[in-house]
Amino acid sequence: MKLNIALLAGDGIGPEVIDQAVKVSDAIAKKYGHDLSWTPALTGAAAIDDCGEPYPDSTHDVCVAADAVLFGAIGHPRFDNDPSAKVRPEQGLLKMRQKLGLFANVRPTFTFPSLIDKSPLKRERIEGTDLIILRELTGGIYFGERGRKDNGNTAFDTCTYTRAEITRLAKKGFELAMTRGKKLCCVDKANVLESSRLWRETVQAMEKDYPEVTVSYEFVDAVAMRLVQWPNSYDVMITENLFGDILTDEASVISGSMGLMPSASVGEKARLYEPIHGSYPQAAGKDIANPLATVLSAAMMFEDFGLTQEAQDIRDVVNKSLAEGIVTEDLSEGAKAYKTSEVGDWLAKNI
Amino acid sequence: MKLNIALLAGDGIGPEVIDQAVKVSDAIAKKYGHDLSWTPALTGAAAIDDCGEPYPDSTHDVCVAADAVLFGAIGHPRFDNDPSAKVRPEQGLLKMRQKLGLFANVRPTFTFPSLIDKSPLKRERIEGTDLIILRELTGGIYFGERGRKDNGNTAFDTCTYTRAEITRLAKKGFELAMTRGKKLCCVDKANVLESSRLWRETVQAMEKDYPEVTVSYEFVDAVAMRLVQWPNSYDVMITENLFGDILTDEASVISGSMGLMPSASVGEKARLYEPIHGSYPQAAGKDIANPLATVLSAAMMFEDFGLTQEAQDIRDVVNKSLAEGIVTEDLSEGAKAYKTSEVGDWLAKNI
Ligand SMILES: CC(C)[C@H](C(=O)O)[C@@H](O)C(=O)O
Ligand SMILES: CC(C)[C@H](C(=O)O)[C@@H](O)C(=O)O
Repeated sequence: MKLNIALLAGDGIGPEVIDQAVKVSDAIAKKYGHDLSWTPALTGAAAIDDCGEPYPDSTHDVCVAADAVLFGAIGHPRFDNDPSAKVRPEQGLLKMRQKLGLFANVRPTFTFPSLIDKSPLKRERIEGTDLIILRELTGGIYFGERGRKDNGNTAFDTCTYTRAEITRLAKKGFELAMTRGKKLCCVDKANVLESSRLWRETVQAMEKDYPEVTVSYEFVDAVAMRLVQWPNSYDVMITENLFGDILTDEASVISGSMGLMPSASVGEKARLYEPIHGSYPQAAGKDIANPLATVLSAAMMFEDFGLTQEAQDIRDVVNKSLAEGIVTEDLSEGAKAYKTSEVGDWLAKNI
Repeated sequence: MKLNIALLAGDGIGPEVIDQAVKVSDAIAKKYGHDLSWTPALTGAAAIDDCGEPYPDSTHDVCVAADAVLFGAIGHPRFDNDPSAKVRPEQGLLKMRQKLGLFANVRPTFTFPSLIDKSPLKRERIEGTDLIILRELTGGIYFGERGRKDNGNTAFDTCTYTRAEITRLAKKGFELAMTRGKKLCCVDKANVLESSRLWRETVQAMEKDYPEVTVSYEFVDAVAMRLVQWPNSYDVMITENLFGDILTDEASVISGSMGLMPSASVGEKARLYEPIHGSYPQAAGKDIANPLATVLSAAMMFEDFGLTQEAQDIRDVVNKSLAEGIVTEDLSEGAKAYKTSEVGDWLAKNI
């Protein structure tokens, strides 16, 4: 297969972890005779420094022309505590999601047997956890009208959803549930929000098309509890943008292996793969960040192109590296810590 | 002291747990020579059944005339999966918060040494946890304009905040931090929301008035993670209504003792005390629900009236009941489980 992949390394540790995913993907391509080409482009703070824009048109063009986008991380601390900053790296991320139409963010949370004791949760609480949160990514309060009134003393944001937006996300959720445990949980705040009531109404109306799927409706506050109490009771969850932002991050730490959690963001046509961790600026340039989440994001990419064995090879070699202790300092526990690049080299060599 | 307390038992297990708090409070009053009078009034599903209104004017009048309100729980499953229900118990709760001006919800999360192993989190993660979340309770997306457009196919909700609303909540946060660890964390989503940027701006401007308080600003998604990872790293947190709803519930389960967590909601004048658990309809009428969160909410009430020793006596007797295993089935772990009313009787007798 011939694949042209846009490479958006982004900020902080982005470039370092991306490099390792490229090494591993190239090794897979060589093994299976695929033809991968990588087209780098700027995003985030790096792009602001270059041209004043966190998601320049030139980068968008690269993404549109590519078969998939592999993304590192975005964000730089110099923008975080400056509420008045006019251009922020995150705007690039939001613009990219919107312009590429990446409406569904797919975030699995699962456990690695060898890492289960790194979880903040007790073993019996997380054993068997294997859930996927589908977060709506191009609507809601992230993209609604916002502004100030009253000389800047009143601020507002608007959360808007249409039935069509909810339907296309929910459809993915039902379909995904059909390939797995056939359980779908719709997370909302329908006891307060009108947009949540539209979510619930829309999903309820779709139930009859998927008679095998057991659907439950839970309030976001209750889910924030149950994710800590019994994460292994969930299968597929669907939710709106802001709730998804909070819950996917909460879910990411329960496995204890945030540095290992991959994600995909997909649209009608575009597909983007990225680790769920952030740009981790304190570690940037030190060759110490864990590259596995990005490597596993590349595995999701191969999987989505139907290259199932290729994806499995990547997961297998990652498991092998964990079992043999070829890991970065976040996982080394007193034993030898490998560098980011050493882990990448080892993985590529062992493909 | 003479205190007139409005008694809003509400739905589900509300009446049962409220009864025990009354017993304990009456025992305290007797011991210290206070004059407590209780005025019951209807709310929630119970009030809807009575007069079609979840927070009738007659109940409001009772609350306004009282020195404090002791509240049980609200909510009934027959309304939950009916997005089209015109009147819902929760509306009563929201109306009550707004009409009484209860703008600050005070939710402590702490651990009981004897219960620490009930937490889903590992001991070393939660030991020493003692945090308070101050949730803004009468603004934001809970009370903004909402509705449908486009033949019902588009729904919207608006989150609005004014500088004045943020200031009065933040002021309480700074003052509370001054009486404790002097750390304040402002939780927002300032990288996306305009209302969050107003929060951050407003709190930043107040910092100079509290030079001893160390203020941090964290994004809500990051906090949802850190609460699970290192809950004991927080002291006082302030946040807007919806984030507070999610985070306080998440925080409530990390101690493993949700049935023990009290809360207060305060305004310029009104004060309301309630357990943070819900109406737990499956247990209603069975005399099995844990009354301790409601009893400890009564302790917060005494404390706020300056009756510090009285509050301490209640906390002491609760600790004693835990140590001696005089507990309901959620905490009994195979040993004898006491009834809700038996626990209340024991506490009152041991005051
Ligand atoms: C950086 C930020 C705008 C972004 C979001 O809130 O969506 C991030 O938290 C994420 O989840 O990808
Ligand atoms: C019942 C519901 C409206 C309420 C809220 O969201 O505020 C509840 O979850 C709470 O936290 O008191």
